[in-house]
Amino acid sequence: MAWEQKLMRTVRLRNDQVPGTLASLLAAMAESGASVGGIKLLTETPSSVVRDISIYAEDGAHLERILSVMRANPGTNIIAVRDEVLELHRHGKIAMRSRAPVDSLGALRKVYTPGVAEVCRKIADDPTQARLYTGISQTVAIVTDGTAVLGLGDIGPVAGMPVMEGKAMLLDSLVGLSGIPVLVNTKDPDEIVDTIVNIAPSFGAIQLEDVSAPRCFQIEEQLMHRLDIPVMHDDQHGTAVVSTAALRVACNATGMDLDRARVGQVGLGAAGLAIAKMLMRLTANPVYGVDLSEELLQRLEQEGGVRSSLEAIMADSDIVIATTGVAGLIKPGMVRQGQIILALSNPNPEIEPEAAEAAGAAFAADGKSVNNVLGFPGIFRGAMEANASRITQEMLLAAAETIAELTPAGELVPNPLDKAVHRAVARAVAQKAIEQGISRGEYMPYLGD
Amino acid sequence: MAWEQKLMRTVRLRNDQVPGTLASLLAAMAESGASVGGIKLLTETPSSVVRDISIYAEDGAHLERILSVMRANPGTNIIAVRDEVLELHRHGKIAMRSRAPVDSLGALRKVYTPGVAEVCRKIADDPTQARLYTGISQTVAIVTDGTAVLGLGDIGPVAGMPVMEGKAMLLDSLVGLSGIPVLVNTKDPDEIVDTIVNIAPSFGAIQLEDVSAPRCFQIEEQLMHRLDIPVMHDDQHGTAVVSTAALRVACNATGMDLDRARVGQVGLGAAGLAIAKMLMRLTANPVYGVDLSEELLQRLEQEGGVRSSLEAIMADSDIVIATTGVAGLIKPGMVRQGQIILALSNPNPEIEPEAAEAAGAAFAADGKSVNNVLGFPGIFRGAMEANASRITQEMLLAAAETIAELTPAGELVPNPLDKAVHRAVARAVAQKAIEQGISRGEYMPYLGD
Repeated sequence: MAWEQKLMRTVRLRNDQVPGTLASLLAAMAESGASVGGIKLLTETPSSVVRDISIYAEDGAHLERILSVMRANPGTNIIAVRDEVLELHRHGKIAMRSRAPVDSLGALRKVYTPGVAEVCRKIADDPTQARLYTGISQTVAIVTDGTAVLGLGDIGPVAGMPVMEGKAMLLDSLVGLSGIPVLVNTKDPDEIVDTIVNIAPSFGAIQLEDVSAPRCFQIEEQLMHRLDIPVMHDDQHGTAVVSTAALRVACNATGMDLDRARVGQVGLGAAGLAIAKMLMRLTANPVYGVDLSEELLQRLEQEGGVRSSLEAIMADSDIVIATTGVAGLIKPGMVRQGQIILALSNPNPEIEPEAAEAAGAAFAADGKSVNNVLGFPGIFRGAMEANASRITQEMLLAAAETIAELTPAGELVPNPLDKAVHRAVARAVAQKAIEQGISRGEYMPYLGD
Repeated sequence: MAWEQKLMRTVRLRNDQVPGTLASLLAAMAESGASVGGIKLLTETPSSVVRDISIYAEDGAHLERILSVMRANPGTNIIAVRDEVLELHRHGKIAMRSRAPVDSLGALRKVYTPGVAEVCRKIADDPTQARLYTGISQTVAIVTDGTAVLGLGDIGPVAGMPVMEGKAMLLDSLVGLSGIPVLVNTKDPDEIVDTIVNIAPSFGAIQLEDVSAPRCFQIEEQLMHRLDIPVMHDDQHGTAVVSTAALRVACNATGMDLDRARVGQVGLGAAGLAIAKMLMRLTANPVYGVDLSEELLQRLEQEGGVRSSLEAIMADSDIVIATTGVAGLIKPGMVRQGQIILALSNPNPEIEPEAAEAAGAAFAADGKSVNNVLGFPGIFRGAMEANASRITQEMLLAAAETIAELTPAGELVPNPLDKAVHRAVARAVAQKAIEQGISRGEYMPYLGD
């Protein structure tokens, strides 16, 4: 399948206007192992046709083979090979924009001096007015030190920037929040915390991203302690919310009772520990966990979990969730009949869903099906609309329940680009904050621009 | 006619859900002489309706009468009264926006996982690629500690936010840069510097704003020393650039030779000292200066200036520039025949231009005529396009000369909203950086979106 192939290119080609040219081209490409995505007609003359064809290849060498095959096809000329992914990233994927035109001196005098002085004075007199008359309450810092970017590891904050920009794109597109990438040039947890605390007045919330475990726990805890705005490490809690929602849906689909199920968590990094914590909060039952790190096992125990082994978890659990980053860790022979298995490591899961189900699992899914994008936008939006001082486990659970409820029949999670889902998550999170009394009044729903 | 009325307010009110409530309200308002603009429905419940009504009044007393009439209407509750300037500031004047639509799973896979991983890897392998494939090279941090906001003084960084947002609006509108307000929660210069250095990888340049003197000198110097990206305190150098341009124009208009003129600088704060420094660099003559602060006088002397007194400066100078914040400091009797006087304090100058000219000045202007907006956007744009490691006095002088050259006949400076001027300033600054060898190659001009 195309999505598993690693390189995507757009090939612009001119074919002779001879019936069968495209068909023979596609046949030759298929033989060379290329997957073809969209085919777009650009221009047509009596003698030739120009098209853009999206192709997917395993790697650079494979791409070259595919292109040679294309060049060799009679009547086919390759005009250009474009990397659309890179093109989309050119000059960055986000930009800070003015929300009102500054097209006259009159406008300038309202938004800048002298008009702006009145607004400054109003906030100086009553700091709570900043929530209404600045963008602070709509702005999320997306903070990274670049120590755990995607599956790429410690590549540094600048190389992680494309991911942070992607998150900001989604915050804008899905819930209308301003996401500001903050690339931190130090790996010292205390220095990271001090730095973020020093610039925190600029933001309405702090989203930690791609910070390695166990440093991420300490950084998040200290920031939550020192700041009175929502702080959330997305790789922990965003993932836990969406995984819990998916688990709820899988339980419904298979008739399993989540409250009585024995749950095993394989891998107790940022995501795994947060999932275990959330499920224990949800069901009040212990989660059995395993990890290579003694520190992480102790953290699980502090949260009420029980240390176990891979073999015992596979043998005894009704539900197994794996977040190890180790492809193929779970062998088909280890699967217990009727188990639910979420093997969440990307890009390659601990066990392929098909293999798990063939081995007797009642339900299996991988990380590609449990899209993190469903969580953080609505969670931040809701917490910020409610002017919550923090994000609680209860608010996260409300998000998970909402995502599960809005999942269409036959799916594991909703469409991550469905804005109605994000809106519903935000509403549920805000409502929970208000119920819990951690909203500082003045609920401010998003009305669009 | 409504537009001739002086006050515009938006009244948010909750009406009982009783037919005729709005009609009777509008009738009562009309009787009191109110004009009504737009009426917007916000929320509706079975028992009440919330609306925003725009009203126009003659003055404050009239507004109060209208509001009393509204309050007296049965079933009407006024929730809030807002004005138009505030309205423009509502939820902030800027927002971080996605530069490409994320409207399909295909798009999501290109801008986010898995596509983004290839871009991250590319930058990890060659960090210079971040300039092309992230927004860092288009992004300016607008840093303040809120210690010298407009003429309001130390009102804190959050109350200064509307000014920072205004700067960001202008960076976007005039030169297409992303301005990110960074509100720093400490007044300790070393801590400010450490904090900014720690987050500097996020940005292509640092604009310091509204930081009080003399702290601003130390903070700027240390940041320039520790970072290899452009750092500029706008209140110093932006103001100096535009003032120097205006002075050049005034000299041309009056036939004075700037290179031979004796220049006096009254007030040696952030702006005054920077103006003196720039003029000494331009003419190679000393500038005579006066200030109440011994530290600032010593700084002038370090830069090659000469300490003097207000009386001596007024008596001996061909050109007097005043940046004291003290309205009316210069009395008409102190003006020398044929002097050029720029009395730049806002909102009230050291001497009104009309009074100075009546007293014999050849030319006089105040701060309203010397708009700071003309400087910083093009300076940052040019330095960043050239990938300059810093902003030199020569680059600033190139900006000043360009602004002077593009000033229409009969004006003191160009229209600050004329994008062609900002484009020309950027080009001149970039060219000077390249000439001086401080550009790190790869000139990247702005081609719009």
